[in-house]
Amino acid sequence: MNIIGIDPGLNHTGWGVIDYNGGHMRFVAAGVIAPTIPVMTGGESALAVRLAHLFQALHQIIRDYAPAQAAVEETFANVNPVSTLRLGHARAAAMLVPALANIPVFEYTANKVKKAVTSNGHADKNQVQMMVRRLLPASATQSADAADALAVAICHAHSHRLTAQTG
Amino acid sequence: MNIIGIDPGLNHTGWGVIDYNGGHMRFVAAGVIAPTIPVMTGGESALAVRLAHLFQALHQIIRDYAPAQAAVEETFANVNPVSTLRLGHARAAAMLVPALANIPVFEYTANKVKKAVTSNGHADKNQVQMMVRRLLPASATQSADAADALAVAICHAHSHRLTAQTG
Repeated sequence: MNIIGIDPGLNHTGWGVIDYNGGHMRFVAAGVIAPTIPVMTGGESALAVRLAHLFQALHQIIRDYAPAQAAVEETFANVNPVSTLRLGHARAAAMLVPALANIPVFEYTANKVKKAVTSNGHADKNQVQMMVRRLLPASATQSADAADALAVAICHAHSHRLTAQTG
Repeated sequence: MNIIGIDPGLNHTGWGVIDYNGGHMRFVAAGVIAPTIPVMTGGESALAVRLAHLFQALHQIIRDYAPAQAAVEETFANVNPVSTLRLGHARAAAMLVPALANIPVFEYTANKVKKAVTSNGHADKNQVQMMVRRLLPASATQSADAADALAVAICHAHSHRLTAQTG
């Protein structure tokens, strides 16, 4: 079963697909979507075009890797309202693509992701990335954003396994 | 030319379509999309399902009325970060539907919409709704959310006319 993890952002959305099978996980693919800022001459919204770019890129990834489930990082509302609004836009695009394809979407807070991967809810980015490389050796050359997305997928695989064991 | 105005919200998204032709505007249709809160049994995100509902409902409306341009209210980041994040999600869904259909999306602040409709950037909701009814008499029976969306469409029609005159 393929699981896609998504770490949304308007400038950089990380994504990572793992294959999870009988408690064993394997790296499949990962990357970063970075929608360019288009030059609009007629006063149209550049934000709408960037969101469409993000949506279409994720749509292609989901077609290519056919994940059965999607996990998205649930970033808490930021102290900066403008950043929060931008993040809300990017997260909505990231959640809509799997939801419209009838792929169940699961949300995990950053602390839950860190704890699932490093056993420490307050681990720093480097520790998370090191553990992702250890758990998925084939992902070693991936960027930081892609590693973060793989961490979200790993978090979901762990919680999924837990559910299967206790349910 | 049909113009759709959208006043996005996770609980209630108002929409309104007007026909704008040679400086004259006519009410075409309007309504409110209110995605229900689904009961999720497996821990999946209810937010993702609600956003998909909003997206699909708007998609059908855009298919039915084939607007050439879309106008979306650009609500400023709220003081409440949780509300801001929710609003960001709903706005992204509202902008994505026309953007993915290659319909140019225009954003207008609430003050600009109020000023375009009532000549007063600080008009209250009742004043805006009264002017929408006066400008589009056939819309008289519409709800407050639909009237707000029609106000956004009227705002765009005015600014579009202005552009055509000065450009």
